[in-house]
Amino acid sequence: MPPYIAVVGGGEPGPRDERVAEEVGRLIGESGGILICGGRGGVMAAAARGARSAGGLTVGILPGTDRSDANDSLDIALATGMGEMRNMLVVRAADVVVAVGGEYGTLSEIAFALRLDIPVVGLGTWELAKDGRARDPVVRAATPAEAVRTALELAGG
Amino acid sequence: MPPYIAVVGGGEPGPRDERVAEEVGRLIGESGGILICGGRGGVMAAAARGARSAGGLTVGILPGTDRSDANDSLDIALATGMGEMRNMLVVRAADVVVAVGGEYGTLSEIAFALRLDIPVVGLGTWELAKDGRARDPVVRAATPAEAVRTALELAGG
Amino acid sequence: MPPYIAVVGGGEPGPRDERVAEEVGRLIGESGGILICGGRGGVMAAAARGARSAGGLTVGILPGTDRSDANDSLDIALATGMGEMRNMLVVRAADVVVAVGGEYGTLSEIAFALRLDIPVVGLGTWELAKDGRARDPVVRAATPAEAVRTALELAGG
Amino acid sequence: MPPYIAVVGGGEPGPRDERVAEEVGRLIGESGGILICGGRGGVMAAAARGARSAGGLTVGILPGTDRSDANDSLDIALATGMGEMRNMLVVRAADVVVAVGGEYGTLSEIAFALRLDIPVVGLGTWELAKDGRARDPVVRAATPAEAVRTALELAGG
Repeated sequence: MPPYIAVVGGGEPGPRDERVAEEVGRLIGESGGILICGGRGGVMAAAARGARSAGGLTVGILPGTDRSDANDSLDIALATGMGEMRNMLVVRAADVVVAVGGEYGTLSEIAFALRLDIPVVGLGTWELAKDGRARDPVVRAATPAEAVRTALELAGG
Repeated sequence: MPPYIAVVGGGEPGPRDERVAEEVGRLIGESGGILICGGRGGVMAAAARGARSAGGLTVGILPGTDRSDANDSLDIALATGMGEMRNMLVVRAADVVVAVGGEYGTLSEIAFALRLDIPVVGLGTWELAKDGRARDPVVRAATPAEAVRTALELAGG
Repeated sequence: MPPYIAVVGGGEPGPRDERVAEEVGRLIGESGGILICGGRGGVMAAAARGARSAGGLTVGILPGTDRSDANDSLDIALATGMGEMRNMLVVRAADVVVAVGGEYGTLSEIAFALRLDIPVVGLGTWELAKDGRARDPVVRAATPAEAVRTALELAGG
Repeated sequence: MPPYIAVVGGGEPGPRDERVAEEVGRLIGESGGILICGGRGGVMAAAARGARSAGGLTVGILPGTDRSDANDSLDIALATGMGEMRNMLVVRAADVVVAVGGEYGTLSEIAFALRLDIPVVGLGTWELAKDGRARDPVVRAATPAEAVRTALELAGG
């Protein structure tokens, strides 16, 4: 069974995060992994574009009820009508989550993954602390290659 | 964009419904449609098996949190952890629903589809009435071929 | 623990169903039951109005994200943002469901309740058949008093 | 309309967080606010106990399908069968969220609230940063009294 790898990140990323997400997607596609994302623009679209360019299967889980809101690099686009709660379906479907930058929606996905014991690899994303001390189980990666290599290892665990 | 066709029905169908579901799946696969189902056994497994045998893409939306509960004919199996509420995601994702036999879960899918104005094609499934009069918007088909032909027409609408 | 009784029915009922729903609500309130409904108008509002007039606790589970969409007879109004999928939360929360008239949304609630082995009492609502034979586990009641008496018995089971 | 205030935090808090949660609940109850929580033990039970002791209305939104999993200080306990995804319903129902300590589940609730523009007041809970800089929209409070006063102000906004 191929690994299911969710790539999460903002809908309006800067150019660097967008390039990173596309490269992460490409490497996931090359590895034979299945890309899960939120189905919209920004990091979601970049990751799907990358995965598809490498022949990978791409799945988007949409907040709304209309499939035509999906980005155009998805093999499967699922309308849920659940609004932002669909973030949790993106995470639930995955063996591992790669977070690229991101805002509060991405933070909710990171947190929900940690809650479910689904490992999270981070590329320039949120850092967590409690009581003034770092308490951050996100596995940090410096490059897309390192992120995907780590994600594949964690997905196999 | 290919049509998304949900096939819904019981997890423990009789042999006739199982054969019908497999043939429905096969014809969906041949048509280039994407098969959506609940990812488990019975009608769901038969439809996925049929679709896959014809080269179609198959998606299962699972009630539990463990992807290994999926039948073995799925290209994509999504764990939701939402229990039977995932029935509504199966319907929401579809352009048209084909119901084969089925019990109360299937009835909930038929009803939810009708609520959302998603057309339903029925093969030996529930009949609906109110105040003693048939009031049944399910489009009845006598054969798998008629069901899939009708479903494809309705999905294009 | 008080019984949780969901009253389900259409958002735009005729005057008879509206009177019936209000009387059902009133009797639930008098019995000390907790009324669960979908939080909007029509049968939902009538049942909540009745229950509240008798001092009962009333809960509405809303499809949208804005609590101000609720009818004005609710002690608790919960916004879900899940759209029509919130129907299933109404049912899931209940020990027994009373269906008054209703359209496809109501049918989806009846079916989901049956799927979950939650008993359903019907007042002029959907009738179900398969293979041309009635197969209808909805417990039919002729009056609000009979419906609520039956519902309370079933909720205690 | 009374404010809806969610209190979120761990299921197995230390004694300090438990005392804080109970006091937060008590002050919410005194203020006439409606307490929303996840319905289980720890911070959820302590907050509900406090609110109820002050005559407040208490609502628990449960992950499982069995209402008897609820703590015993709830006026309304809603079974959802949605697992940990019910966290998002707790948040969605609230005008403001008060986070007391907490683990990853709590972090997911904080993040989801921020995503939905629902304000969050924190008492010894997660701290957030990006790119090595604090970026933390949680309004920090030093005492239960400060937390509830702030929450009531934010809920009115």
